[in-house]
Amino acid sequence: MTIEPIAWDSDRLRLLDQTRLPVEEVWLELTNHHEVAEAITSMRVRGAPAIGVAGAYGIALAALSSAASDLDALIADLRSAAGQLIATRPTGANLSWAVKRTLAAAQAADGLEEARRAALNEALLIQREDIEGNRALGQYGLELVPERATVLTHCNAGALATAGYGTALGIVRAAVEAGRQINVVVTETRPLSQGARLTAWELLRDGIACRLIVDSAAGSLLQQGDADLVVVGADRIAANGDTANKIGTYPIAVLAREHGVPFYVAAPTSTIDMSLRSGDGIVIEERPADEVSSSAGRRIAPEDVQVSNPAFDVTPHDLIAAIITERGIARQPFVDALRNLTR
Amino acid sequence: MTIEPIAWDSDRLRLLDQTRLPVEEVWLELTNHHEVAEAITSMRVRGAPAIGVAGAYGIALAALSSAASDLDALIADLRSAAGQLIATRPTGANLSWAVKRTLAAAQAADGLEEARRAALNEALLIQREDIEGNRALGQYGLELVPERATVLTHCNAGALATAGYGTALGIVRAAVEAGRQINVVVTETRPLSQGARLTAWELLRDGIACRLIVDSAAGSLLQQGDADLVVVGADRIAANGDTANKIGTYPIAVLAREHGVPFYVAAPTSTIDMSLRSGDGIVIEERPADEVSSSAGRRIAPEDVQVSNPAFDVTPHDLIAAIITERGIARQPFVDALRNLTR
Repeated sequence: MTIEPIAWDSDRLRLLDQTRLPVEEVWLELTNHHEVAEAITSMRVRGAPAIGVAGAYGIALAALSSAASDLDALIADLRSAAGQLIATRPTGANLSWAVKRTLAAAQAADGLEEARRAALNEALLIQREDIEGNRALGQYGLELVPERATVLTHCNAGALATAGYGTALGIVRAAVEAGRQINVVVTETRPLSQGARLTAWELLRDGIACRLIVDSAAGSLLQQGDADLVVVGADRIAANGDTANKIGTYPIAVLAREHGVPFYVAAPTSTIDMSLRSGDGIVIEERPADEVSSSAGRRIAPEDVQVSNPAFDVTPHDLIAAIITERGIARQPFVDALRNLTR
Repeated sequence: MTIEPIAWDSDRLRLLDQTRLPVEEVWLELTNHHEVAEAITSMRVRGAPAIGVAGAYGIALAALSSAASDLDALIADLRSAAGQLIATRPTGANLSWAVKRTLAAAQAADGLEEARRAALNEALLIQREDIEGNRALGQYGLELVPERATVLTHCNAGALATAGYGTALGIVRAAVEAGRQINVVVTETRPLSQGARLTAWELLRDGIACRLIVDSAAGSLLQQGDADLVVVGADRIAANGDTANKIGTYPIAVLAREHGVPFYVAAPTSTIDMSLRSGDGIVIEERPADEVSSSAGRRIAPEDVQVSNPAFDVTPHDLIAAIITERGIARQPFVDALRNLTR
């Protein structure tokens, strides 16, 4: 059974509520873009590609639920919905890419009902392309994975972070399907524990061997030679290859280089933002303090403590051995390689 | 009001139960060494120097509660208690040092009652020396702290990790007392959150400015130049300066070097184990899986997930700019400097 956390169901969007995993599998039914925006903000759906797909469906829902009586009024409604959706999470590139693409499909239509259909069809297409792209990405990634390998990953770049199959975990799945002996080391990923809650859940569900460590144990793991490669996802990749991903990615990249372990980024080309020359231009989302001062819903720190909670960090391109996409592998120098892949 | 988490009270040991902080301040009353061993295993008292002091009192309690009718029988009882106490936590050096020292004081006595008194007096002396030593250590550390500084620390090497005042946080306290403008960045320190629960608590209680981050945010903090120095404690220091400390210390040391930020270790000389040539010989305690698969008492990971939970890692000496002790500062090459300090 493939894990697909996002499903279109005749007139509504069904979303697996990832804040409830692994304890409960709760499916949400969303009927308008406000609910989609809330689901993204609250990280009921998360992972840059999955957020993109959800955002596309947000536009489709806005089109279906709009009371507009002509095309111009519909497009105005969709522009407003697009602005609201894109503002939910600033760091990931896929959200604005998918929202704008769905909006453009509606804009290209000749009439009101055609525009509504076009928005939904575009969202369905983006979802299907994402899964197919991840399978292609997994096949490209195979050449980087030895016959027997321990793979360190951070956060969740799996089926739950995409429309299905996953990016970093898509490579793991492709390697397992190819008969390779793969062990995955999963970092917990504080503050929201996507590694412990989501990556461990989806790997166990697929029968893929894994073990869980706290984030700060990645250092001694690499020091002791207990990982053969690192593969992570990405939220936004600048033209030079600098990569924003979940907070804690950058330390792992530095430690991987320290110990001669290759560090790979796996992401669809929709994550690549050629408008940014480098990672300096990436906006890092600061999330609420209580994500850090609490854990599993309980306060752990004194009430009046100050908190910094950046959701992402930026890994400089020189620490990245390769960026694996659904169209092929980019290697250094990334500028040319990424330009070719996004052409 | 100085924080002193360990207090002798006529015939019993009073311990601040650190597993209950910061929510509650619960004091335990322990009357025998079995209870002391349990308190150490369960981390009701933790921090290598504090564990040493508690262990010394464990021997004192064993001496007071022993039914032995002659000195030989008493010493046999104390040896047994010493073995039980030392086995509770293998990585820290101070525990066996303090237990053996207290045992030796009893052994040097001429009679049964004198031995009982000697054990208690030695434990009281070890406690007093630890606080005084930390104040001296803080003064030595002053020369490493600029007039205005942001200090990154990991775990808790504060008053709660010692008999009082602290080692890494002793330097912070000395700098604040000297009128310097100090901000402390506190890492949460998963899995048991000693940074969030204990370091933040004791700094706020002393009115010292601090802010809390997740462990994996230390990388981008250092990358952005937002820390001037790193100071951590130590559980065991080998003769060459290799230092075992809380899991997650090693990644911070690597990142500090990456960004040209000095990385300091602060510890009493009782932490230095000249019998070990290097960190390779340090036994790393593996703690229970549920510390990682749970957080704040709630399960976060799937029930059947495998876990690795090393409590410590080893930072190679070449990443350490200086080791600050109560007898002075050791710099590279550490072998000679540490030999001189422990002579």
